[in-house]
Amino acid sequence: MFFMVVESIGENVTEIAKGDVVMTIFLPDCGECVDCKSEKSNLCSKFPFKVSPWMPRYDSSRFTDLNGNIIHHFLSVSSFTEYTVIDIANLTKIDPLVPPNKACLLSCGISAGLGAAWRLANVEPGSTVAIFGLGSIGLAVAEGARFCGATRIIGVDVKPEKFEIAKKFGVTDFVNAGECGDKSLSQILFNGKSLIGCLFGGLKPKSHVPVLLKRYMDKRSGRDSRICDE
Amino acid sequence: MFFMVVESIGENVTEIAKGDVVMTIFLPDCGECVDCKSEKSNLCSKFPFKVSPWMPRYDSSRFTDLNGNIIHHFLSVSSFTEYTVIDIANLTKIDPLVPPNKACLLSCGISAGLGAAWRLANVEPGSTVAIFGLGSIGLAVAEGARFCGATRIIGVDVKPEKFEIAKKFGVTDFVNAGECGDKSLSQILFNGKSLIGCLFGGLKPKSHVPVLLKRYMDKRSGRDSRICDE
Ligand SMILES: [Zn+2]
Ligand SMILES: [Zn+2]
Repeated sequence: MFFMVVESIGENVTEIAKGDVVMTIFLPDCGECVDCKSEKSNLCSKFPFKVSPWMPRYDSSRFTDLNGNIIHHFLSVSSFTEYTVIDIANLTKIDPLVPPNKACLLSCGISAGLGAAWRLANVEPGSTVAIFGLGSIGLAVAEGARFCGATRIIGVDVKPEKFEIAKKFGVTDFVNAGECGDKSLSQILFNGKSLIGCLFGGLKPKSHVPVLLKRYMDKRSGRDSRICDE
Repeated sequence: MFFMVVESIGENVTEIAKGDVVMTIFLPDCGECVDCKSEKSNLCSKFPFKVSPWMPRYDSSRFTDLNGNIIHHFLSVSSFTEYTVIDIANLTKIDPLVPPNKACLLSCGISAGLGAAWRLANVEPGSTVAIFGLGSIGLAVAEGARFCGATRIIGVDVKPEKFEIAKKFGVTDFVNAGECGDKSLSQILFNGKSLIGCLFGGLKPKSHVPVLLKRYMDKRSGRDSRICDE
């Protein structure tokens, strides 16, 4: 469940109310720390990302079983369940008209790929983009690159059959990595390339995910909006 | 010889004249290609960097020995000699008042380190910077970080004795990497860091080196200028 309805809220929570529709996102966005306030990072320093068994704010559990035994949290959102307790830092309030089966895609993988093209690589109109690996995240990179106006999108994979699907996501060229011989990392860096690590595609859950959802709703109603102009 | 006086010029060369003082820089800056015109790259695509034995523009040699045998070029500038033939793309005209023993430092290593802090990492006032390796390039990174207003500069090295020299270049803290155990690259990237490859510190020879030389001359005459405001 990456898409939930708020059943009740804790003390001091003003950002959401009972009945709101929210997305649960594993990456915290406290909105208060230096990193959440900066345009340069999406990695909250108040609640650093961990695959922790606890509630991030309290380092304790809010779950017990019928016998009172502690049940652990998972990835801050514990979303493999019908009801859960989640920190406000891990919730993004969304337009309740967005279909759940679409919104949930932005809770992890699609955001990671799309954000990598949009927020990290800063793909610009007319760019050429190469994507290594055409799985779902790679295809989301293609979608992000296309949104940002890339004109040539080169898909690199070892399975040529993936190209047909990739075409639908805007990939224009295909390179079979199995036929390319070896290049080492150092050669890539020597040529002035950057290797950029990220979580969640560099997206800030509360500010960037709503932009993507708005784009989806605009597109659905016939309006075309570009994320990269915003 | 990273610092030379022009003895004669070829046809169509207008950028420099006989008697001009120039620096020889291994990285070409043709000034015409899409990359030389872009603020995002210092890697000329008209003359891609190679450790080639030829003149980059002609793929031939301009040198022969007394018997007419070809002598190879080296790194486009062939500067281990008293006289050489160099493409205009590899020459930066400089203020003849700059002392040769200072200017020559910017022809390779110091520019690489200083540029990495200034142009690639975009160090901002108040930043904390960590430098891995306190050799001359690492110290040049410290100088670049200090120029850009970094307040905390952490030097990482396996030789604690380097810290005393490093202090003179603005390094404020020292970490002995030999006592830190192992971290892998993947952990660094997982934390949202970037690994950025570069040549010549991302500097454009003809536009950025003169800025650094001007700063040196200003400093020398008592004026203080900051490279990062320009
Ligand atoms: Zn935060
Ligand atoms: Zn060029």
